[in-house]
Amino acid sequence: MHAVPSEPLTVPSGAALDTLLGRYEMIRRLTAALAEPLSAEDCVVQSMPDASPAKWHLAHTAWFFEQFVLTPHVAGYRVFDPQFAYLFNSYYESVGPRHARPHRGLLTRPSQAQVLMFRDHVDDAMCRALARGLPPEVGAVVELGLHHEQQHQELLLMDVKHLLSCNPLRPAYIDKESLSRGPRSQAPLPAQFQAYPAGIYEIGHDGAGFCFDNEGPRHRVYLESFALADRLVTNAEYLEFIRDRGYARPELWLSDGWATVQQQGWNRPLYWNESLEEEFSLTGPCTLDPCAPVCHVSYYEADAFARWAGARLPAETEWEVAAQPQAVDGNFLEDGLLHPVDARTAELFPWENGHQQRTQMFGDVWEWTSSPYSPYPGFRPLAGGLGEYNGKFMANQFVLRGGACVTPRSHMRGTYRNFFYPHMRWQFGGIRLAKGTRT
Amino acid sequence: MHAVPSEPLTVPSGAALDTLLGRYEMIRRLTAALAEPLSAEDCVVQSMPDASPAKWHLAHTAWFFEQFVLTPHVAGYRVFDPQFAYLFNSYYESVGPRHARPHRGLLTRPSQAQVLMFRDHVDDAMCRALARGLPPEVGAVVELGLHHEQQHQELLLMDVKHLLSCNPLRPAYIDKESLSRGPRSQAPLPAQFQAYPAGIYEIGHDGAGFCFDNEGPRHRVYLESFALADRLVTNAEYLEFIRDRGYARPELWLSDGWATVQQQGWNRPLYWNESLEEEFSLTGPCTLDPCAPVCHVSYYEADAFARWAGARLPAETEWEVAAQPQAVDGNFLEDGLLHPVDARTAELFPWENGHQQRTQMFGDVWEWTSSPYSPYPGFRPLAGGLGEYNGKFMANQFVLRGGACVTPRSHMRGTYRNFFYPHMRWQFGGIRLAKGTRT
Amino acid sequence: MHAVPSEPLTVPSGAALDTLLGRYEMIRRLTAALAEPLSAEDCVVQSMPDASPAKWHLAHTAWFFEQFVLTPHVAGYRVFDPQFAYLFNSYYESVGPRHARPHRGLLTRPSQAQVLMFRDHVDDAMCRALARGLPPEVGAVVELGLHHEQQHQELLLMDVKHLLSCNPLRPAYIDKESLSRGPRSQAPLPAQFQAYPAGIYEIGHDGAGFCFDNEGPRHRVYLESFALADRLVTNAEYLEFIRDRGYARPELWLSDGWATVQQQGWNRPLYWNESLEEEFSLTGPCTLDPCAPVCHVSYYEADAFARWAGARLPAETEWEVAAQPQAVDGNFLEDGLLHPVDARTAELFPWENGHQQRTQMFGDVWEWTSSPYSPYPGFRPLAGGLGEYNGKFMANQFVLRGGACVTPRSHMRGTYRNFFYPHMRWQFGGIRLAKGTRT
Amino acid sequence: MHAVPSEPLTVPSGAALDTLLGRYEMIRRLTAALAEPLSAEDCVVQSMPDASPAKWHLAHTAWFFEQFVLTPHVAGYRVFDPQFAYLFNSYYESVGPRHARPHRGLLTRPSQAQVLMFRDHVDDAMCRALARGLPPEVGAVVELGLHHEQQHQELLLMDVKHLLSCNPLRPAYIDKESLSRGPRSQAPLPAQFQAYPAGIYEIGHDGAGFCFDNEGPRHRVYLESFALADRLVTNAEYLEFIRDRGYARPELWLSDGWATVQQQGWNRPLYWNESLEEEFSLTGPCTLDPCAPVCHVSYYEADAFARWAGARLPAETEWEVAAQPQAVDGNFLEDGLLHPVDARTAELFPWENGHQQRTQMFGDVWEWTSSPYSPYPGFRPLAGGLGEYNGKFMANQFVLRGGACVTPRSHMRGTYRNFFYPHMRWQFGGIRLAKGTRT
Repeated sequence: MHAVPSEPLTVPSGAALDTLLGRYEMIRRLTAALAEPLSAEDCVVQSMPDASPAKWHLAHTAWFFEQFVLTPHVAGYRVFDPQFAYLFNSYYESVGPRHARPHRGLLTRPSQAQVLMFRDHVDDAMCRALARGLPPEVGAVVELGLHHEQQHQELLLMDVKHLLSCNPLRPAYIDKESLSRGPRSQAPLPAQFQAYPAGIYEIGHDGAGFCFDNEGPRHRVYLESFALADRLVTNAEYLEFIRDRGYARPELWLSDGWATVQQQGWNRPLYWNESLEEEFSLTGPCTLDPCAPVCHVSYYEADAFARWAGARLPAETEWEVAAQPQAVDGNFLEDGLLHPVDARTAELFPWENGHQQRTQMFGDVWEWTSSPYSPYPGFRPLAGGLGEYNGKFMANQFVLRGGACVTPRSHMRGTYRNFFYPHMRWQFGGIRLAKGTRT
Repeated sequence: MHAVPSEPLTVPSGAALDTLLGRYEMIRRLTAALAEPLSAEDCVVQSMPDASPAKWHLAHTAWFFEQFVLTPHVAGYRVFDPQFAYLFNSYYESVGPRHARPHRGLLTRPSQAQVLMFRDHVDDAMCRALARGLPPEVGAVVELGLHHEQQHQELLLMDVKHLLSCNPLRPAYIDKESLSRGPRSQAPLPAQFQAYPAGIYEIGHDGAGFCFDNEGPRHRVYLESFALADRLVTNAEYLEFIRDRGYARPELWLSDGWATVQQQGWNRPLYWNESLEEEFSLTGPCTLDPCAPVCHVSYYEADAFARWAGARLPAETEWEVAAQPQAVDGNFLEDGLLHPVDARTAELFPWENGHQQRTQMFGDVWEWTSSPYSPYPGFRPLAGGLGEYNGKFMANQFVLRGGACVTPRSHMRGTYRNFFYPHMRWQFGGIRLAKGTRT
Repeated sequence: MHAVPSEPLTVPSGAALDTLLGRYEMIRRLTAALAEPLSAEDCVVQSMPDASPAKWHLAHTAWFFEQFVLTPHVAGYRVFDPQFAYLFNSYYESVGPRHARPHRGLLTRPSQAQVLMFRDHVDDAMCRALARGLPPEVGAVVELGLHHEQQHQELLLMDVKHLLSCNPLRPAYIDKESLSRGPRSQAPLPAQFQAYPAGIYEIGHDGAGFCFDNEGPRHRVYLESFALADRLVTNAEYLEFIRDRGYARPELWLSDGWATVQQQGWNRPLYWNESLEEEFSLTGPCTLDPCAPVCHVSYYEADAFARWAGARLPAETEWEVAAQPQAVDGNFLEDGLLHPVDARTAELFPWENGHQQRTQMFGDVWEWTSSPYSPYPGFRPLAGGLGEYNGKFMANQFVLRGGACVTPRSHMRGTYRNFFYPHMRWQFGGIRLAKGTRT
Repeated sequence: MHAVPSEPLTVPSGAALDTLLGRYEMIRRLTAALAEPLSAEDCVVQSMPDASPAKWHLAHTAWFFEQFVLTPHVAGYRVFDPQFAYLFNSYYESVGPRHARPHRGLLTRPSQAQVLMFRDHVDDAMCRALARGLPPEVGAVVELGLHHEQQHQELLLMDVKHLLSCNPLRPAYIDKESLSRGPRSQAPLPAQFQAYPAGIYEIGHDGAGFCFDNEGPRHRVYLESFALADRLVTNAEYLEFIRDRGYARPELWLSDGWATVQQQGWNRPLYWNESLEEEFSLTGPCTLDPCAPVCHVSYYEADAFARWAGARLPAETEWEVAAQPQAVDGNFLEDGLLHPVDARTAELFPWENGHQQRTQMFGDVWEWTSSPYSPYPGFRPLAGGLGEYNGKFMANQFVLRGGACVTPRSHMRGTYRNFFYPHMRWQFGGIRLAKGTRT
């Protein structure tokens, strides 16, 4: 049986999740809880330019509410520290100058304690404002801020994992012996390809309930017939690719991917050790589970694996069509594993009883799609500073779908579009195979 | 009146263009003719890693026929020099090791004269083989080789332009005083947006006649309604963007584009001088023609301009739908101008008589589309080494359509997909605006 | 009057400084005291590749005693943590592999608390061993370790100053309002050049008492006649150089220096602000004192200034000859100012009573010499791992002499040779002018 | 017997070498002769940032006479092309802006033919001026220009060797089968160390006859006793160092040297092939001669070899003292070998008859000294633009002495100071060992 998740990762309870205030309290509390296993030292360091210190995540997410809700919309709000706007703005060019991203790790001041006070200060004002009630258009910004916060919950875990992996002591973020999944994991059944006929489909968010601007508008697409594997690619399958000299055969790779393999000396997923028997996880070094989904591969690796396997990656439209009938459930942050698990752990995920194994469409690992991240037809960014949220990243990145074991469950949707550069590996990215059925 | 093109650029005549042999002779002769205005010194130097020396283009295109036609398919063929395979392979990993691209400019040997002898040697064997007749599947490789050669004709001109632009003497590739188009160019009429209804369209090549593998298979797409401008964006319009501080406003740019602008210090198209009154062309420095299409802009600049103009770039599907009824004609290499011209030069391009101005869909400048370069549904690369021709570049690049004033006319098709990285500017790339019509 | 230095910087007292044990206790305590104004967050971050985190300095200096004294020479010593040898070795290739220098800032574990425990563990064992007595050759290693520790005391302050200067909040290391020296500082008298005749001189350490291997052997040199300024170059004088376009005139610069100025965009000393009216110090931003010595200039700047002033930098031999009769005293770490001060602060430094102003030969700022750092004739490095201490750096660096306001007084000698690369500026480096007297 | 050198390298004869005009004619003719085996293509390409194209050398040396002699001092001189001053200035900041060094290889125009015409134009004016007679101070500039030209003769050969070595065809600069020295070379006798007593010596140029400004003033130095090997280190000896894992033992290396070895992957001298049996020379690939001096090693390698051998490199003062009684003769450019040869080729170099082998102090290879390149006491650069000739390079470089097989004999002096950065290897640099004799 899988371990009961340790306390810091338990969903803070008691909040009325059907109110914005309730959700605000729960989500904000979870962020702080994620930082609890870390020392102030752990929270200040930036291990690479793409990552941010945990302290920065804690402060930036509070800054978001101060900048976009409290200052413009709550009369009498007192800014906690005027310098924080400069320090903790992320990329909103229109909001003003900001501290350069690669230097976030130099901010030993303000201290972790001051940042937590900043959070309390913001929370206090926010909770009072939410209790009093806010106009709907401001409530919408709060909702956006909460989804923003959830994104940073995942980023915080990604960044902490990277930081700890750089330490020769190989320390664990959380130390759970009971999480040793090796012996109990079960080899999944061979993947089946589920077919879908050609035709016009509708994808994208219809605007009922929250979504990011990049998920809409809902629109029609014509798809040729296609088929999707009914589970993720496993570590065992990926090992076959490695052993078949997958990293040494240029014909399997995109040109840019091959150049990256050469320059970086890649020969295995990020966090695997040289013996290919162990990987680094948020619980420290652990035995590589052959049945678990492969994780921390780049787009280039996912694409090369698919080519080697005689298949391809799904388009994001195909993925979304397949996901539409499925419940948004799976191995998410709230389950406390913080690591992908095999498709047959039915006892842990009873909602899938009746099936022989989980499809793993949601949770476990983000699934690379073959789709460059582009605007949908008719896409309009939000007005003002928040318009920089998504649209300006629509070049050179690829879409991933479905969420991962470090994604909050309540953050996920079937229309959700995540995106990373094709060489990036520190996000929890894995592989689902697709095929065309037409010949 | 526009000048009669100088001799080197006249289409070599006398060949029977309806035979493969005839086309072979004509195209091969044109390549050599393009190098004639250049000294051996001009032909050996590589001005940047993305460019190649003219000599390399001359040799590589001969190598293609030796490697893929003569050696495997023509009995008794004697390889000209076994070392050339290493020197002049471009990127075919499966064909063997090769000279690193950024070092192409170090090859002072073999000499220009030897490379021309290599071409003669290959031409001699090819012409005899073509006269005797080749099996259809080999003929198809020859056809591919000719289209490959035409691509390198354009690359040769792009690379020569870049090389000469780096020289403080600002020398001309061809010196034609009569080409001064300034006084006679006419301001185009205001751009009209031509609307297309939503619906299912077919795009892609149907396989009748030659095409590259990436142009097919022909397939259905669903498009929302859209509209396309009936001419290209002009230098005058782009100047307005510059004067409106277009290069200084981050909100107009993609995030990666803004970073590039900052790093590179871009504030105008490539080849424009600081005064914004002159540009460098293949005929040397010339006055900037406000009526001519803007050229040598990156994808980032095209995208930012479109946003500033309240429009967007067309998707490649939209472009192709609009191009389908049009004749593949315009200001091409064979016209000898080697520079884009305004939309109203009716006397030069009489095929458009009856219209008030040319649509410029074909020729003049390649048109950036908003479409990342991806495989069509059901795409299959060619088998063997030639399979590396297109597919492996399908990441991180954007599609351009329509050909330019340095593209051979007979090389162009409505389904033709060119592609460059979004930061690249030395190709002849320009802008056509699009809009959605749905609101 | 200058302020009483704040407590952390008071020399820990009560130790019998005439015993090795007494010196050990005092020096080790001072290192810990220097870290006291810092949070654990301040101590973990590395602000640039040349710098190290304060925690690393704390641990590395303890590792030195464990590695070179306790483990090989003290029976029964239990290594605190075997992994620390890898983490905290600096550059001793012969001692084993080590954590890469630019990644020192990733070591959030071991924690600051654990490192302080490591120090206590080592101190406990060392003090017991020293109390029991150690053979002379081991005592010599302890002596070396203490001088090593003092070097890291200065490095710690240099590195902390750099780290804090990177923070937009501009925090102070120690906050002493009473240190405002501006109003009380006095303009020094014009510099006089003190002449020395040509002849044979002896320089280098004679081996009586401690010295580093690079200070010997004592040897004869022939010097042409020369003259040395009787005080340091001031901020006011350096401002004249700046205002005379010193940073814009290539003829004043060494070729490599000019290239550095261009690449780095230098136009003033490190830590000066753009207005040239303020500098960053260990007590935070402060008004630039025109009477204080210029500090944080590179060799290139010192050399260009000297050329502009019609003088040159002294050779290290010249400097040492001039220093031989002088007492090793001045504005040192123990004085607690942590900042250079003008030459006329007689009340603070009464030992120079009788002179009109201090020569500043010792303390305040390290003085760049024109001497590349090379071995003396007959130089022999120490045997074993400690032989890597000095000799292997004898290329591409320049010698600085005399110590600075962050150097412990008891660490300094007239024969002491410090060395940095000519582009480096974060050490407390300043300028004394020299001239030849021969014409 | 060694081959008669091929014609291009024969010293042009018929000139009266005792007149400035005669020397001018001879030296200028030799430069052109050195370019004769090269095609225009060979002459235009720059193979690395440190090298220059041969055409650039041809033009720059002519520019020197135009800039510093003809334009200021010869009435009625007509500048050949005003743009050439910009193109062919090397580093004289005071003379005006100039074409960036790394872009010298982009100058396909002016053509090789035009550059040769430029040389003729300058020569014509110079010869007429010299025949008429020039004031002594102008004659001194001409003399400097001729020594400058001789430096570029050597640079031209160094740069050509590098360029040809980058070509996979491995072409020869001159093709002389008769030069195969392998079978006839003789193993030198074991090196003897010649001792010199401690004392005051005089070094530096006394000003009688031509010298560069950096060779003076002549001055006294005190040297400890020392000893110098009576021949150069051979390839065979260097091979022993390699086989003893010299490139894998950090304790043998300076810290910067070790970093360079790691970064560059060095494991043998430049131009040696992987088998350690062959090297690339100006006559193409040739068998490594174990008896010949090792060549094309960096300072770091020379220093590491010396440490491995239990010796050290000589100081430049020591070298000069030892060289003072010796004739300035040896294997120089005029001998036409263009490659270092063993110490016992007495028949070729009869001036050393009576000795068992040559000391190789002059010619063959430049000898790395342990001396950083610094000004002598009392050094004064030339006034005006020519003052940039030497002084501004006095940082970060090391002195080499004695000239090489590509140095013109008439260019060499015992006081001559050459200098390169310690990582550079494309100059013909080798090793002579030294020892202290004091213990």
